[in-house]
Amino acid sequence: MARLYLALVHHPVVNRRGEVVASAVTNLDLHDIARAARTFGAKGFFVTTPLEDQQGFARRIVEHWIIGPGADHIPDRRLAMELVRITGSLDEAIAAVTAAEGQPPRLIATGARKHPQAIGYSALRSLIADDRPHLLLFGTAWGLAPEVIAAADWVLAPIAGTSGYNHLSVRSAAAIVLDRLLGAPA
Amino acid sequence: MARLYLALVHHPVVNRRGEVVASAVTNLDLHDIARAARTFGAKGFFVTTPLEDQQGFARRIVEHWIIGPGADHIPDRRLAMELVRITGSLDEAIAAVTAAEGQPPRLIATGARKHPQAIGYSALRSLIADDRPHLLLFGTAWGLAPEVIAAADWVLAPIAGTSGYNHLSVRSAAAIVLDRLLGAPA
Repeated sequence: MARLYLALVHHPVVNRRGEVVASAVTNLDLHDIARAARTFGAKGFFVTTPLEDQQGFARRIVEHWIIGPGADHIPDRRLAMELVRITGSLDEAIAAVTAAEGQPPRLIATGARKHPQAIGYSALRSLIADDRPHLLLFGTAWGLAPEVIAAADWVLAPIAGTSGYNHLSVRSAAAIVLDRLLGAPA
Repeated sequence: MARLYLALVHHPVVNRRGEVVASAVTNLDLHDIARAARTFGAKGFFVTTPLEDQQGFARRIVEHWIIGPGADHIPDRRLAMELVRITGSLDEAIAAVTAAEGQPPRLIATGARKHPQAIGYSALRSLIADDRPHLLLFGTAWGLAPEVIAAADWVLAPIAGTSGYNHLSVRSAAAIVLDRLLGAPA
């Protein structure tokens, strides 16, 4: 059983000019990625942002669905939202996985750009089946900052379509990556 | 080259009590599914709703990104949004594919529920590689109405995760289905 965690990084990420920024939290990112994480058996989903108002926004969304009116309205959403942990930094997320699993996770960066040392999906699928915890990093805005990619143990190959066009939402990318790593198509 | 089209159906769909309703158009459904459709080389993405105000809402979103301020702001979004066609019914979408392709499409229903005559992903992948056009149907709200599923040529197997939990967003489901049918993982 893979011990796979996800982190949705809101800082440091780049904007379309390549500048390092902190992005805003998007409601449907939390819903969609939490639901996909639950579907494919990920053990946790970290939403990382250093901005306190954005942490509060994310926390209100999660609480609405876990202990608020949403928990009665759509009970299955609670099971997904219970995976969400809001942290101020990626380091905090790594520390939380380390505390839960007893050893630090391998870090896997994702993104739309090709990387010379990229790992493919079948290779990563084998890797995460071993007994180490793994933390998949997804960037918001225009993607993870170079320093995050440089600090990762592996960079996952981009999701190549058939058209040369490669501009998926982070919600779609996370769903496809989880399916490729953990799914079992009929 | 597959001649694959998608339709996001807002009527007839069911609500959580199983009643047939018309659902509201969600902005990010259009963005995410159009981007995934473009990435995987689908030929068109129909957004079907009989509600004129919802058609207008969808049309304003699409025009913003094709001919409005969005076209300059994020040019690659235009390439995705150009795939979107807004129609009043599924029959109109079928007629549009038939007119474009010279023959009616096979209809493939999708959903989270198991169906006794479901087709699997590898079988459908072979099927769509033949020279017939195909139209994949995705339901909003709690899924396609029974009459739509009954009228389909095939019902695609649900996306089974590893957890028994099966509550993906339609955005995530569409991304995974396109990847399974048309993607080529590294």
